[in-house]
Amino acid sequence: MSVVPSFHDIAHVGHVELFTPEPDRSLAFFRDLIGLSETKRKGDSVYLRAWGDYESCTLKLTASKTSGLGHLSFRARSEPALQTIVEHLKASGVQGDWFDDEILHGPAFRFLGADGHPLEIYFQTEKFKAPPELSTGFKNQPQRRAINGVGARRLDHINLLASDVKASREFFNQMLGLRITEQIILDDGSEAGAWLSATNKSYDVAITRDHAAGAHGRFHHLTYFCDTREEILRAADILVEAGVAIETGPHKHNIGQTFFLYFLEPGGNRIELACGGYLILDPDWKPVFWSQADRAKGQAWGLQTVKSFHTYGTPPVVEP
Amino acid sequence: MSVVPSFHDIAHVGHVELFTPEPDRSLAFFRDLIGLSETKRKGDSVYLRAWGDYESCTLKLTASKTSGLGHLSFRARSEPALQTIVEHLKASGVQGDWFDDEILHGPAFRFLGADGHPLEIYFQTEKFKAPPELSTGFKNQPQRRAINGVGARRLDHINLLASDVKASREFFNQMLGLRITEQIILDDGSEAGAWLSATNKSYDVAITRDHAAGAHGRFHHLTYFCDTREEILRAADILVEAGVAIETGPHKHNIGQTFFLYFLEPGGNRIELACGGYLILDPDWKPVFWSQADRAKGQAWGLQTVKSFHTYGTPPVVEP
Amino acid sequence: MSVVPSFHDIAHVGHVELFTPEPDRSLAFFRDLIGLSETKRKGDSVYLRAWGDYESCTLKLTASKTSGLGHLSFRARSEPALQTIVEHLKASGVQGDWFDDEILHGPAFRFLGADGHPLEIYFQTEKFKAPPELSTGFKNQPQRRAINGVGARRLDHINLLASDVKASREFFNQMLGLRITEQIILDDGSEAGAWLSATNKSYDVAITRDHAAGAHGRFHHLTYFCDTREEILRAADILVEAGVAIETGPHKHNIGQTFFLYFLEPGGNRIELACGGYLILDPDWKPVFWSQADRAKGQAWGLQTVKSFHTYGTPPVVEP
Amino acid sequence: MSVVPSFHDIAHVGHVELFTPEPDRSLAFFRDLIGLSETKRKGDSVYLRAWGDYESCTLKLTASKTSGLGHLSFRARSEPALQTIVEHLKASGVQGDWFDDEILHGPAFRFLGADGHPLEIYFQTEKFKAPPELSTGFKNQPQRRAINGVGARRLDHINLLASDVKASREFFNQMLGLRITEQIILDDGSEAGAWLSATNKSYDVAITRDHAAGAHGRFHHLTYFCDTREEILRAADILVEAGVAIETGPHKHNIGQTFFLYFLEPGGNRIELACGGYLILDPDWKPVFWSQADRAKGQAWGLQTVKSFHTYGTPPVVEP
Repeated sequence: MSVVPSFHDIAHVGHVELFTPEPDRSLAFFRDLIGLSETKRKGDSVYLRAWGDYESCTLKLTASKTSGLGHLSFRARSEPALQTIVEHLKASGVQGDWFDDEILHGPAFRFLGADGHPLEIYFQTEKFKAPPELSTGFKNQPQRRAINGVGARRLDHINLLASDVKASREFFNQMLGLRITEQIILDDGSEAGAWLSATNKSYDVAITRDHAAGAHGRFHHLTYFCDTREEILRAADILVEAGVAIETGPHKHNIGQTFFLYFLEPGGNRIELACGGYLILDPDWKPVFWSQADRAKGQAWGLQTVKSFHTYGTPPVVEP
Repeated sequence: MSVVPSFHDIAHVGHVELFTPEPDRSLAFFRDLIGLSETKRKGDSVYLRAWGDYESCTLKLTASKTSGLGHLSFRARSEPALQTIVEHLKASGVQGDWFDDEILHGPAFRFLGADGHPLEIYFQTEKFKAPPELSTGFKNQPQRRAINGVGARRLDHINLLASDVKASREFFNQMLGLRITEQIILDDGSEAGAWLSATNKSYDVAITRDHAAGAHGRFHHLTYFCDTREEILRAADILVEAGVAIETGPHKHNIGQTFFLYFLEPGGNRIELACGGYLILDPDWKPVFWSQADRAKGQAWGLQTVKSFHTYGTPPVVEP
Repeated sequence: MSVVPSFHDIAHVGHVELFTPEPDRSLAFFRDLIGLSETKRKGDSVYLRAWGDYESCTLKLTASKTSGLGHLSFRARSEPALQTIVEHLKASGVQGDWFDDEILHGPAFRFLGADGHPLEIYFQTEKFKAPPELSTGFKNQPQRRAINGVGARRLDHINLLASDVKASREFFNQMLGLRITEQIILDDGSEAGAWLSATNKSYDVAITRDHAAGAHGRFHHLTYFCDTREEILRAADILVEAGVAIETGPHKHNIGQTFFLYFLEPGGNRIELACGGYLILDPDWKPVFWSQADRAKGQAWGLQTVKSFHTYGTPPVVEP
Repeated sequence: MSVVPSFHDIAHVGHVELFTPEPDRSLAFFRDLIGLSETKRKGDSVYLRAWGDYESCTLKLTASKTSGLGHLSFRARSEPALQTIVEHLKASGVQGDWFDDEILHGPAFRFLGADGHPLEIYFQTEKFKAPPELSTGFKNQPQRRAINGVGARRLDHINLLASDVKASREFFNQMLGLRITEQIILDDGSEAGAWLSATNKSYDVAITRDHAAGAHGRFHHLTYFCDTREEILRAADILVEAGVAIETGPHKHNIGQTFFLYFLEPGGNRIELACGGYLILDPDWKPVFWSQADRAKGQAWGLQTVKSFHTYGTPPVVEP
């Protein structure tokens, strides 16, 4: 029998690959408005990161016919932890393969999650080394702060859509050792959402229900983190003046307590800028349950969750 | 006898001309780090403004052998107010001349202040019209927010050095109708500083004592305003990482209550970024007096005023 | 013929009297949650102010059978300005009387505005003197900062409902000399809102259309000002946790650019906490017009104006 | 041979016991100005916590003849982790004893650190349950936000003074499994400071050199965390107006990148309010080294470290 991964065997979300049918506009958006910078290009992909990301890539933008998730990649805590997880996946009947042809990180094991999301784990990585013009006296920081656009600091989390939230939640919890921190349980007992963490942050992965019939493996949003609410509020001005429609926010989430702002990048994928939230220091934290009645009250200060939040995901669902 | 100008006859500080021996580096500094933008060039001068400035120029940067104040320009409340002030100046024996060869504003009356600072008043002005790429849905704002660098919002005030603070204070009060809002009176009864206002802001012009023997008409600093303290704190990071030394701050002034950050631009002139402060709504406001003992306590939270603040001004004093 | 008041003859909004059918709960609300403090009591009224208000009262809370506006009071710029305005009102056929029985300020002229709102002007006032336990080293501030609840800083503005916005706008502009800064003009040419100012703030009085048939002289909201958006966001948490429903916000107004938060006090009157906004330095500012299409886009970042904003005012309209 | 504790076996700093010769004034200070609340009293001790602390006590305030550290207590990740650590301590020759007479947490193992600081580890704890008047709809938060005073959110870290920084650093690293994140190494190769973490925060324990000859086991400061820099800035106003001298700040640390404010509580112990900082997601983080030259540059924006920071600790050193 395999060893079950424990909490912290996954260190954190490493990077996300997004497909975009508008690669040039998506790239310009992330670079000029969000303030990410380009590390490399290869084939149809551009590798991006925020100024506070210690790895060389947190967002891989790949030209494609449609939008949606290319893959979601986790960095393991160590080489042995990586082996433990992979053995456990295999012993649990999860199919997968090792790949070592990706740039900017080492060998990765690729497999599908419970809802069909392409997932990946790796340990070896290429840490970002700042060139002289980006060097900083803040020695605990990979490079100097971005001064263009929003200047988001680092990749924070990803939100996946799943036809069966419970199955995906159990997968991330039991296969990867992520800790369940918050959940939405509807009156009929079904799960509408689950938040899981690999760190002291209250979540690194969120799973919410995909209401589109027959849809699998879809993407809800990914989130770049800013240090302050003022940066989010400034971002709202910047985006609106650049003609980007705000889907919802700025406002505060009840779940996770983060201060949020949602919008679509030109390729159609939903992006969040967020800050704040709370740290979980308690080692025997019990998941917080939110009921249907709780959710009917809206977000933290009363803003109702926008409809599109429950219906829009990428790629779009193609009618048969 | 001439009519004495009343409070509000001067509407606000219009623009400041700064001399710089490093014109290219100064321009790059204000444009790339502070986030000002260029309206025009003429001769040795570049005309700049911040995104929230409604006029076409608030900073005229002029190449020169040395640093310091080119001139300080006020916009009058109206054409009749302009005439009233000029007549009062003339009737009071202040020499001056009308000029109509400057770009971006109408006829201006130029004269010297009590310490020899070149001053100017005008009414007609060229308001900034945003080109399409800078247009904004915020109709009460001249253009969209600057998204590069600090992105300061608007010119706020100027601080002059004077060999005789009292004489300069009286000049601005009696000749231009500015309201005296705060003062530093030392134990020997002499004045070390005076703050005067043309608006509901607590000051638009500050005058502090020039400790350099024989110096006249020198410049202490000018200030661009940001909406939030977070922008000032972000500015501190941006400047430090760009290799700009912070002279003092971020900290809070007792006088004016603004949150401040001081540094030198490449030409050697001191610049402040500030926000906050208080509005004076009281129409019969009495000046607030700060004693030598008050000042010995340092700034609002106890930071001692840096020595260079009392000794450094531009242009440098040339030893005979 | 009388002299027409000019801009700045009214110095600022002095105080607002609110009626409340729940005087004890209203008092507790303003004191414990908003952080106002009580100066005096007389008859059925309690006189309150915020820590940054220089006068002894900015909110007079009067027990009453219903909610709504007791009166709105302006402080004139000077004794002569007060006389000028009163003469102009009388010469213009506006009925009114002098009263000198109110505490905390001197003789006041009371009259009705165009929509029947009780208005008042005065000049002499009792400035707040801090007792030792509230004294502060910030000599330009009336007392030390409130450290309980929201700790709002000062009264900012009032919003009146009017059956005829144009008539009320013209009244405040022509009778009191307030400057028109922003307006909403609908497709049919009618006015839906007007913003007027006595200061460099973008508004001190707002007038919006009362959609209730036959209603006159009703109150929309009054606003206390905080220095930072963070205080507004903290206020939202404080209010929600205290069981106070947020009507709308925190979000940013297009008009005035303030960051807002609306809710009802226990007596049923709508209160706003706000910060930010812009200063008008331009002495020949032209009103900014917002069209029906502009308003359909919602507030600054896309939040739709809540329905209750157009229908709810105090006192409630009594069905015949 | 014993099992060496790994990173995360210690979950976090649980609580700190401070001695105070001014118990009443210290209690009033933490309660009324910092916003902590009292859970229990027993003997000469009062048990306090901040609104975001999930345990029933994070600060035990004990009346004493002098100031300084009573003890520093860590919560282990689990019961087995607790046993592992204790076995390792014993196998390594560290003397200690189990105590189960303390209120608000279960059995604890007490021992001395390398410099003589009283340390403690426990796992069982009494989580805080909010009474109805403190209940909150934010289900992921132990109680509603404190609305009086500063309203600090949670205990963050402790800074100990040590005669031998290296010895203490190795003790916390090797005995308790804390991760070394940042270090100051002087030109002579000696260590002047070390920062260690049990979490994704960049540090939970700091050790800096005690310059007092012969001193051992002294306390430098403990830190309560606020969510925003604005709260720290508001705290500076609150403290100054209450007559509390700011030792240094608000400013930004280079080490840890937190935004700080230091002052003494009435018992003489140094307290810090801080926010911000960075999370360490990288599982193979290498300690960041700061040289003597780095430190000579001062804090993040140039503020020189105050002298008292290197000389003042509690209890005071008694001259022989």
